[in-house]
Amino acid sequence: MTWGRACHDVRVSSSLKDVAARAGVSARTVSNVVNGSARVSEQTRVRVQEAIDELGYRPNLAARSLRAGRTGIIGLAIPELHSPYFAELAGLIVDEAHRRSWTVIIDQTRGDAEAERRLLTGDGGRVMDGLVISPWALGAPDLTATARPLPVVLLGERSPQGMADRVAVDNVAAAEEATAHLLSSGRRRIAAIGLQPHLENGTARQRAEGYRRALRSAGVTPRAGWERSVTALHREDGARAMAELLDGDAAPDAVFAFSDELALGALHTAHARGLRVPEDLAVVGFDDIEDGRFSHPPLTTVSPDKRQIAARALQCLADRIYSPRNEVPAADLTIPHRLVVRGSTVGDAATR
Amino acid sequence: MTWGRACHDVRVSSSLKDVAARAGVSARTVSNVVNGSARVSEQTRVRVQEAIDELGYRPNLAARSLRAGRTGIIGLAIPELHSPYFAELAGLIVDEAHRRSWTVIIDQTRGDAEAERRLLTGDGGRVMDGLVISPWALGAPDLTATARPLPVVLLGERSPQGMADRVAVDNVAAAEEATAHLLSSGRRRIAAIGLQPHLENGTARQRAEGYRRALRSAGVTPRAGWERSVTALHREDGARAMAELLDGDAAPDAVFAFSDELALGALHTAHARGLRVPEDLAVVGFDDIEDGRFSHPPLTTVSPDKRQIAARALQCLADRIYSPRNEVPAADLTIPHRLVVRGSTVGDAATR
Repeated sequence: MTWGRACHDVRVSSSLKDVAARAGVSARTVSNVVNGSARVSEQTRVRVQEAIDELGYRPNLAARSLRAGRTGIIGLAIPELHSPYFAELAGLIVDEAHRRSWTVIIDQTRGDAEAERRLLTGDGGRVMDGLVISPWALGAPDLTATARPLPVVLLGERSPQGMADRVAVDNVAAAEEATAHLLSSGRRRIAAIGLQPHLENGTARQRAEGYRRALRSAGVTPRAGWERSVTALHREDGARAMAELLDGDAAPDAVFAFSDELALGALHTAHARGLRVPEDLAVVGFDDIEDGRFSHPPLTTVSPDKRQIAARALQCLADRIYSPRNEVPAADLTIPHRLVVRGSTVGDAATR
Repeated sequence: MTWGRACHDVRVSSSLKDVAARAGVSARTVSNVVNGSARVSEQTRVRVQEAIDELGYRPNLAARSLRAGRTGIIGLAIPELHSPYFAELAGLIVDEAHRRSWTVIIDQTRGDAEAERRLLTGDGGRVMDGLVISPWALGAPDLTATARPLPVVLLGERSPQGMADRVAVDNVAAAEEATAHLLSSGRRRIAAIGLQPHLENGTARQRAEGYRRALRSAGVTPRAGWERSVTALHREDGARAMAELLDGDAAPDAVFAFSDELALGALHTAHARGLRVPEDLAVVGFDDIEDGRFSHPPLTTVSPDKRQIAARALQCLADRIYSPRNEVPAADLTIPHRLVVRGSTVGDAATR
């Protein structure tokens, strides 16, 4: 690194010296205490620890930061921790970070554009070596505008001007497959739940595009009234959208929901209205959260390879952190997905 | 704070000076760039930023740490991020931390005793001002043995020797109420799912005690074969335990599961075996996760006041951080809970 050796020595030894002076011991002894050496008496250890506490000396963080210009801390920004998809993904990313001896600061943006912007431009960058962010409110142009030297990996949303690496599934293809599966089981009145026209984010738009493509390929004309928008991707939003569909002029015989949570909300409404699933209504979700594996009936869904999303995102981030000059062009990694067919669309799979 | 003014000035100005010298500008200009002042030309800003990047200078973190002996970072250690209960709780704690301008490092221990011990004794304490931990593998004696100067708030598990503040619901009373609810609806063959005899943690033991108390109060003798142990609290563990119960000598007509996830797994098995819920089998869970509100039928559960758990835990932590000498005796806060009755136990609530 470019941090001068002299500076390094002066600053680290100066703070060690402060502690040593306050405790009345040598700098070496302080270092031994900090490193947990057994050669220090209990009495001395206590005295040094008191001095460390009083002076607020943070040996490891300071040393690490000074030595390499790095803290060993990465940020993970997701819309919501309590969303099962993001919770599962966060768990995998934390595991993956541990493997790299990184600590993870998790922030939830609650889908707020200001919060997302602040993370990309703000204070956090001074603690974090890099940031993995799953933007929700911000679209690609916004993300690009707030670009900064902090290494960033985007989950889901593409940055068209190559500001950052991006790791995502092929949303258009996945949505097309999910809809084609409903068509292949003989459904023609297929609704979609989960459009988010109020957001800049492209994920919902891509899933809507895949849905329409599949319908057109099968010679079915998409029906505007069967494309339901939601303000959030929660179960209650899915339940409400499903009720609207059932209360409409013509009820659908199948629903493709853009998230498993929305699909589970739709299932809830279907049960409450006395509909049989899948006989009266077939339901497909997206995300493959654990919840859907145990719902009644179990949920057919698009399953992104979450473990690979976590692994590839942190590999991208590591590459950026260890080659800070950004010589490497931004990567756009497409992660595999597969359609998992369960009882919510196929009768004889109902008790699986 | 006890950090000497002279030391503070010397160290902060020395690192600012390094950046200023490398960029060929004044320390004031570096400070302006760091604080985002508009009075700096773009050319100068770029030059200073380059110097900051090259020297690995972390102005805010360093200054904050030196000024107050604090980083503004707290740790949150939970067994699993993808567990809905902990994900919801983590989301509320992060929100609460934001309100206090704290950043949260989240760690998941995966219920591993070593990981929990490492958090209490290890490196993390040098970055974190304090730690909120929901121990799973470690019991109270272990937690006390690993006590260290880092301010710690325990969620759930009690520290009997007053090592740390503790925030929890009254597990015995809550489990007793849940079981009494099943008794009051006429059930007598009530099983329990969720004992964890392999763990030191007391939560499962307390819930088992409440379950047995309620049975005894009603003159029902607890039956060893109807107390099912699990290795984890996931849906699959609940599904397996339910299958074991149904395959046993005498099938129960009700189940109290020690978590909603276990209860949802039990529901899954009940559906697969063609049982009607609640007619053939009533099910009560614990945690009030969103999932259970939308399951079929919706799940009766013990609902802890999670928002209050988050708020009180961070209040305790703040008190510790701002009075580091630990003059205040350890608090033991009992958070309110309530039984939420839904369709999994009461027939006419089935479509609620």
